Amino acid sequence: MAGPLVAPLVECVANFSEGRNRATVRAIEDAIAASAGVRMLRSEMDTDHNRSVITFAAPPDAVSEAALRGIAVAVERIDLRKHSGVHPRMGAADVVPFVPLEGSTLADCVAIARRTGEEVWKRFKVPVYFYEAAALSPDRRLLENCRRGGFENPNMAPDLGGPALHPSAGACIIGARKLLIAFNINLATDDVAVARAIARKIRASSGGMPFVKALGLRLAERGLVQVSMNLTDFEQTPLHEVFDAVEREAAARGVAIAGSEIIGLVPNKALQDAAAHYLKCENFESGLVLENRLRALE
Amino acid sequence: MAGPLVAPLVECVANFSEGRNRATVRAIEDAIAASAGVRMLRSEMDTDHNRSVITFAAPPDAVSEAALRGIAVAVERIDLRKHSGVHPRMGAADVVPFVPLEGSTLADCVAIARRTGEEVWKRFKVPVYFYEAAALSPDRRLLENCRRGGFENPNMAPDLGGPALHPSAGACIIGARKLLIAFNINLATDDVAVARAIARKIRASSGGMPFVKALGLRLAERGLVQVSMNLTDFEQTPLHEVFDAVEREAAARGVAIAGSEIIGLVPNKALQDAAAHYLKCENFESGLVLENRLRALE
Repeated sequence: MAGPLVAPLVECVANFSEGRNRATVRAIEDAIAASAGVRMLRSEMDTDHNRSVITFAAPPDAVSEAALRGIAVAVERIDLRKHSGVHPRMGAADVVPFVPLEGSTLADCVAIARRTGEEVWKRFKVPVYFYEAAALSPDRRLLENCRRGGFENPNMAPDLGGPALHPSAGACIIGARKLLIAFNINLATDDVAVARAIARKIRASSGGMPFVKALGLRLAERGLVQVSMNLTDFEQTPLHEVFDAVEREAAARGVAIAGSEIIGLVPNKALQDAAAHYLKCENFESGLVLENRLRALE
Repeated sequence: MAGPLVAPLVECVANFSEGRNRATVRAIEDAIAASAGVRMLRSEMDTDHNRSVITFAAPPDAVSEAALRGIAVAVERIDLRKHSGVHPRMGAADVVPFVPLEGSTLADCVAIARRTGEEVWKRFKVPVYFYEAAALSPDRRLLENCRRGGFENPNMAPDLGGPALHPSAGACIIGARKLLIAFNINLATDDVAVARAIARKIRASSGGMPFVKALGLRLAERGLVQVSMNLTDFEQTPLHEVFDAVEREAAARGVAIAGSEIIGLVPNKALQDAAAHYLKCENFESGLVLENRLRALE
């Protein structure tokens, strides 16, 4: 999609290990929002996961400071020794990726991630792991590797600081990556083995679909189970192909899909591609979309 | 979707009765594109329908003159006495609706339609019907009513000029309406009775879905049949509901969907709504779309 010239922006999708205490999550949000140049994009709190995801964008030279202000509040307020939740986690400010939007590159985001990591160790004495494009070694590219063992039993020494984790705030996993879609599909069963089997079947790490990460989880509050996914390259493995694969696998086990949810933000193109797929549109291309055409002509 | 302040634009979706002679269609396009302030959005030629649809946008004070320049070429070059095609038609420049985009209203478009009609009669001696929001009487609101009988045997006298139609260029049906989605679904059968039965079942005029117009047609070149539709208010009767209804009716007759096509342009929201529906997304709202959020904050 061609568009008007825009000031470059970097997105930050900060994951915090608190999804139940609203005051704590608000305090983190407020600290980020008060930072210069920030556009708050999205904030979600998840009780089952006991986790929040705060998404914001800012110019490349301002996004790091905004993230650091949010991390400062998380380190001060969240004590992982008292934390429980179904989602694996390593720190109070658990995962902080920087993502290029229009006008910025993945290389810009790697530099921002490294700079932010240095500040996290220097200011808060919280050790740092670097992952994905910001990883310092290939075995740390995958978030799962950095997080293995969790807060209680970390598997590898941090890249910066440590080796012991911060007693209450653990470590912070900072990275740079392409736009990711966090997509959960809820299954109409309370048998978590079904969600786990489907997750295993579809995820890249066990030979499933490339660019798909998946976990099977129990959603205690709703009496359902969930296939919780990250799609790390939706142009190569589209949203709708993942949905169809989960639906097929669930049907093969006699289970229906109860619904799905998008966590964070989804790029327009992923939805357009899904619509074209399900509507069996033979002639679809992005130039058929009115708004795309108008913007391309601006 | 909130957005930046834009200069007001009116869309014109001009339908011409020529879909086989590329030189004629190009000449019409060129005349429109050369007019001041025009943004060409889309141009399609359909051999089976022997029809072209040229979609453009221009500021409210420029869109009429651009349409008139295209109509001038069509009147000069297209002779309906030598025209054949499966689509009903009344004129060389057959149907010319004006559609409000951001910053303009349906009332603006009614005024533009009336002014354009007066010029069409004055400059080209082509009589004019006014339809939809620009209709002069309620029985002329529906395009089908204005077009009944076709070029060879018109059913009602024109609103401006006539009563005889222009010998080679017929009449021009000019109107103002909301954004329309032209959507065709091809069925994997050569039995046109199936397409006609489904069209009858789903269209508003025979008690089907509101804001749906539908015709069953034969696509001779592909050996298929088609349910050719106009959705006149996609927010009230969504694209995906229409697709699902056609698929259901086809399945009930043992026929599969071969594919679909969007003619002209489709608004982003219609695709987003379809994606959310098929992905069974429980939490979908337009604020989940990255680009919507960024533009709202501009």
